[in-house]
Amino acid sequence: MLKDFTPPKEEDKSNLKAEIKALREKLLAQQQLVRSSALPVIVLVEGWAAAGKGSLINELISEIDPRFYNVTSPAIVPQSEERYPFLYPYAKAIPENGKIMFYDSGWMDGAVYKFLRREITKKQYKEIIRSVNEFERQLRDGGYLVLKLFLHIDSKEQKERLAALRDNHETEWRVTENDLWQHQEYNLFRDTYEEFMEETGKLLPWHILDGTRRRQSSRDALRLLTDAIDEGLEKGRYVGKPFKEEFDLLTMPKLSEIDLSPVIEEKEYKKELDRLQARLGELHNTIYRKKIPVILCYEGWDAAGKGGNIRRVARPLDPRGFDVIPIASPEPHELNRQYLWRFWTRLPRSGHICIFDRTWYGRVMVERLEGFCKEDDWKRAFNEINEFERQLTDWGAVVLKFWIQIDQDTQLARFTDRQNTPEKQWKLTEEDWRNREKWPQYEEAINEMLQKTSTENAPWFIIESNDKKYARIKTLKIIIKALEKACEGRL
Amino acid sequence: MLKDFTPPKEEDKSNLKAEIKALREKLLAQQQLVRSSALPVIVLVEGWAAAGKGSLINELISEIDPRFYNVTSPAIVPQSEERYPFLYPYAKAIPENGKIMFYDSGWMDGAVYKFLRREITKKQYKEIIRSVNEFERQLRDGGYLVLKLFLHIDSKEQKERLAALRDNHETEWRVTENDLWQHQEYNLFRDTYEEFMEETGKLLPWHILDGTRRRQSSRDALRLLTDAIDEGLEKGRYVGKPFKEEFDLLTMPKLSEIDLSPVIEEKEYKKELDRLQARLGELHNTIYRKKIPVILCYEGWDAAGKGGNIRRVARPLDPRGFDVIPIASPEPHELNRQYLWRFWTRLPRSGHICIFDRTWYGRVMVERLEGFCKEDDWKRAFNEINEFERQLTDWGAVVLKFWIQIDQDTQLARFTDRQNTPEKQWKLTEEDWRNREKWPQYEEAINEMLQKTSTENAPWFIIESNDKKYARIKTLKIIIKALEKACEGRL
Repeated sequence: MLKDFTPPKEEDKSNLKAEIKALREKLLAQQQLVRSSALPVIVLVEGWAAAGKGSLINELISEIDPRFYNVTSPAIVPQSEERYPFLYPYAKAIPENGKIMFYDSGWMDGAVYKFLRREITKKQYKEIIRSVNEFERQLRDGGYLVLKLFLHIDSKEQKERLAALRDNHETEWRVTENDLWQHQEYNLFRDTYEEFMEETGKLLPWHILDGTRRRQSSRDALRLLTDAIDEGLEKGRYVGKPFKEEFDLLTMPKLSEIDLSPVIEEKEYKKELDRLQARLGELHNTIYRKKIPVILCYEGWDAAGKGGNIRRVARPLDPRGFDVIPIASPEPHELNRQYLWRFWTRLPRSGHICIFDRTWYGRVMVERLEGFCKEDDWKRAFNEINEFERQLTDWGAVVLKFWIQIDQDTQLARFTDRQNTPEKQWKLTEEDWRNREKWPQYEEAINEMLQKTSTENAPWFIIESNDKKYARIKTLKIIIKALEKACEGRL
Repeated sequence: MLKDFTPPKEEDKSNLKAEIKALREKLLAQQQLVRSSALPVIVLVEGWAAAGKGSLINELISEIDPRFYNVTSPAIVPQSEERYPFLYPYAKAIPENGKIMFYDSGWMDGAVYKFLRREITKKQYKEIIRSVNEFERQLRDGGYLVLKLFLHIDSKEQKERLAALRDNHETEWRVTENDLWQHQEYNLFRDTYEEFMEETGKLLPWHILDGTRRRQSSRDALRLLTDAIDEGLEKGRYVGKPFKEEFDLLTMPKLSEIDLSPVIEEKEYKKELDRLQARLGELHNTIYRKKIPVILCYEGWDAAGKGGNIRRVARPLDPRGFDVIPIASPEPHELNRQYLWRFWTRLPRSGHICIFDRTWYGRVMVERLEGFCKEDDWKRAFNEINEFERQLTDWGAVVLKFWIQIDQDTQLARFTDRQNTPEKQWKLTEEDWRNREKWPQYEEAINEMLQKTSTENAPWFIIESNDKKYARIKTLKIIIKALEKACEGRL
């Protein structure tokens, strides 16, 4: 690919100029169609330092409406300062429907630098490559157009360009230590880029452009982009097919098999609660110091006791180090992006605890049952969610998922109590009653969810909550055990 | 205040316990009322290092629903690394309606540290104090409850607590260099805190709590908070009165006086455009290097040519260093916060250029005319916006505001052209026609806006745009002149 790259022949200038003009006009015309078809487009511009990535992007955008695109240049943050998973800055920047996002360097550069600077191990690098493949597939399956470009120049050309930039007072600041080091290690970078492109080019191909011939590469990039948009507009938004599971799944019982009789005595409850909360408070210190991210996920029936359970967990925590994130229906800007986006952007920093009160599992419950997404979408989601959670645990996060379980009689009793107690009435909505009527459909969906998404790294725990106190104690114990395990052997 | 602080007498423990229990129950009951009344509450917890701010917050939140509050602890970033205005992290964290946000240290600590570490001059410190007063007043006038607490301990007590924290392996990391330095300079900090509180306590008073008696200070804080909420619920959301202008305003013509005849010849236009764009591209490098933030604001009639004007300005800019922010109707999470919040969160980093395609001036145009806010709200907004823009220019930003002006005939011609040209039809909506009918009302509102918000530091420029090309050249010239001036004499 790069080693044996043969630069294309020089073309006739006036022809090129006319071609570029025509392609720009085409892109300009496409933009309203992209907008009206709500097609999101990602253009990843990777390449060598000083290859002209910025200029290339400038050529692509020069005629189009600035309200229609955006450019992001995610900085390469040293591992030591990074408080989020590898994909976080890239996932955060995905465009909304109907817009183009240009990435001025992206996940390839980020991964390669981290690896070559030895901030991550070979194993971590492999995990990152896997996560990149997952991320790209999820975007494609979610209807995104993803165009991947690599702007190539050889070592001699790079040397001259870096020197020219450094000779000019106005541009010398543009040459970073990273750039100089890349040039020094040109062959190492070339082989690593090449390998990265091979390993991530199967689903969505890479396009290598010649950075020495600016006009030709602009024309090529414009053509690739307009062709991709043409194809996207013609076929309509892609909806990925569900695909085969590849995860080792834990065996989970069906909800109907759960014994909901366990209770705890009041005295025992108080004693245990005090003891466990004190222990959790201590552990929070250690978590914070060791910079372990913790993600606690709560799902459960209406009136199952999620709120009270969360409150007992939150109480001993240092308020500076945790957040409770209530998940309601998505807002317009969230609906306009891939469904995991609103969770990516809410992840805790390392060392923090994040408690999700409802989660991304809405995709396979309410969104499935209410028809808010297509059948293929929720069927695909089981695996996509497993991938997402593996990305979180690869990063080092503790991910625990609680299904707060009650039976229908208990729910009815609690609904009735809420209805009859003025200060609790706000907790009960018409929707709760409607959802209750769909109990069997929900139960089926939940059973499928538990079967398909309980993994060693991010397991589901069923919390029997007919007795809320019993449920709280059980949850606290699970959290403490998992955190103790995570703290062992980490610096 | 602090120097002569007399700790309250020790109170009977069992009484205290009962009081705290009752107050917690009250707060628990209040939370649903706060939610249903959409009252946003800010609790600022300032105080000495090791005074127990975290524990106090914990006491306040221990019974309430975690979905109902949040805790933020804005880090004190050294000036050298700070890329945003002083108030940015605090403004970003304001709660949405119906929620409480606890600030674990806030703008007082941030300002005092910057000042005592000599990262800012006395003059800058004064400006920050002024901006804090403006910020607090704007929050109050926008319906926020703001409760300000200071947790006090004396030097001896602080010494013992810091030593105890450092002696414990699990807690030693909590003691920072800043804390140790604060203790060393206890008297200096005390005097500075005191002065800060005096200068910011007129509108919204400070409450000093005794950090040595935890239970008593918890009780006091709970009482202050529940009393404040009671009062807030009783009176309903506060709507601040418009207040007297205190800004030196530039004299602006009325729109009807604008001569819209200026045109530019095609040949001259092309020559000038090339020259000015080249110059702007150069300046962008300097802006970037000198870390000057630039905020360009576009407002104007529908079809006045804002989009094309912005495109000509954006074209020579390095895409890594600028953003175009189209401002549409606010989304629910934006409507649920003070109206400037969605602009605070979109500010450029220093060294970047941000082009707002429509702005915060929506408050005094569409929101005023369509009744989306109360009369007092938009009347107050002139001054609030002047304050906001002064905060931006105090930070070092270049703020330029363009009113793109056309006459009614030109608008009609452009609307008709859009209607008759298939590829332009998407640009024209029913709303554009409706707005056109309200031209006289808009003109009156715009005239008032131009009179009341054109300041030396953030001036309005009227851009005659019956000839779009003339308009683009004029805008580019104004931007270049302002940037050249800003680059002079800055490192």
